[in-house]
Amino acid sequence: MRRTVFFVSDSTGITAETLGNSLLTQFDGLDFKRITLPFVDNHKTARAALSRIETAAVQDGARPLVFATMADPDLLDFLTDGRALVLDLFRVFIGPLEAELGLPSSHAKGRFHGMADNSTYDVRMDTLNFALTHDDGMSTARYPQADLVLLGVSRAGKTPTCIYLAMQFGVRAANYPLTEEDLTRQSLPKALVPIRLRLYGLTIDPERLHRIRSERRRHSAYASLNQCRKEITDAEALFRSERIRSLNVTSMSIEEIGSHLLQEMGLERRSF
Amino acid sequence: MRRTVFFVSDSTGITAETLGNSLLTQFDGLDFKRITLPFVDNHKTARAALSRIETAAVQDGARPLVFATMADPDLLDFLTDGRALVLDLFRVFIGPLEAELGLPSSHAKGRFHGMADNSTYDVRMDTLNFALTHDDGMSTARYPQADLVLLGVSRAGKTPTCIYLAMQFGVRAANYPLTEEDLTRQSLPKALVPIRLRLYGLTIDPERLHRIRSERRRHSAYASLNQCRKEITDAEALFRSERIRSLNVTSMSIEEIGSHLLQEMGLERRSF
Repeated sequence: MRRTVFFVSDSTGITAETLGNSLLTQFDGLDFKRITLPFVDNHKTARAALSRIETAAVQDGARPLVFATMADPDLLDFLTDGRALVLDLFRVFIGPLEAELGLPSSHAKGRFHGMADNSTYDVRMDTLNFALTHDDGMSTARYPQADLVLLGVSRAGKTPTCIYLAMQFGVRAANYPLTEEDLTRQSLPKALVPIRLRLYGLTIDPERLHRIRSERRRHSAYASLNQCRKEITDAEALFRSERIRSLNVTSMSIEEIGSHLLQEMGLERRSF
Repeated sequence: MRRTVFFVSDSTGITAETLGNSLLTQFDGLDFKRITLPFVDNHKTARAALSRIETAAVQDGARPLVFATMADPDLLDFLTDGRALVLDLFRVFIGPLEAELGLPSSHAKGRFHGMADNSTYDVRMDTLNFALTHDDGMSTARYPQADLVLLGVSRAGKTPTCIYLAMQFGVRAANYPLTEEDLTRQSLPKALVPIRLRLYGLTIDPERLHRIRSERRRHSAYASLNQCRKEITDAEALFRSERIRSLNVTSMSIEEIGSHLLQEMGLERRSF
């Protein structure tokens, strides 16, 4: 049976989506149709939201699930009048927090992910620019300013990891692709030696690497399973001989890789 | 008074961080120190977490706040024994969901943001690669495959927005910087004409643009307030005359820009 799931928010809906999806992964075998309704911050938009929820209820023949983050209690009450299970992520926790902190909450809508603070924006832009200009070994001049430099063979996941670290955590990450020459020589390129302690290796199972490379260049020598095996063997040998910590990312999401790196390198995040 | 806030999770902690931070924005004037403890998934790591929480309680002279996402009820019980306010994001909602769906939850730890599904990973990599190879007008050949193409002057926020749309939503976004020539001519570059309906303009207040550009190239003509004013006036005139929808992003976060674009362009997200 299909269930429609709504994420309704007076802001972007990211908080509702994140917790809602996290909860839904605990229920196997159901077919969820997800709809995000952001910027529901007045009675007109709330009426439109309720109308979509009611329509889904009729079409599915079952109550939709509504994950809501609304700072305005009136708008939330309005939604709960409909034919849906409304799980409000704010109201449940605001009470205990007010009691613990001894303060009333501000009930200010759309605060989170707002740009109350330009400095957070600037940090993310700075670190994102750093990741982009130091992608794929393009420039090594500012490596000493990097919080970490990821090493790995082509398509091991270095670029998305660097970008994620910049966007999510404000961490300044560069990446360096291990070349045929580095792998044959089995020693670090000179530019990396002074920052040895900030190096971190990414590795991946050859079969998965083969599949990823094949999507870009099918039937190439570059994508062949043999080539992938050889490069990974050499890269892992280099990490061992140079005592560079490394992580096998074969079955990890970008989020998991990012959290592991932050924790293992003891990095401070610059944005929350 | 300072309060220490812990985000404790059997996975990355992103869900706990997202909801926790969202709730904390409702309390003004407090000094929160945030600590994320990911991958707390056994009794050893839970003991270590509890020890850090207890230490913070002593140092602050006040109970720490703990936002937790733990699928294993035993581990959660263990944490709640300590001297902290533990707000569990799972337990509160799992019950009502089980009742509504008529199913027990799986209590599987670390499910969310895990790579259960390679296809989500592949979509994000594909769209991220698209954003990177179509950044800053570098290539226009594959514009017809773009879900949207962002237009704007240099430093208006096009690149981070494209990358965010790719990583968060699996949307294929390219961006094109409006050149002096485009702005003087007041007409669209040829490559953009066939995809007119997928164009979207980003604009920004000249003062903010001046500040952003000055951080990169202080005292340059490029960063001067006059130059910023002129370019923004011309860009907005071009959007109007070509009937291209646009958004002023001066006081918006990347998340807000992304949600607005998704909604206004009616784009389907490819990953959740």
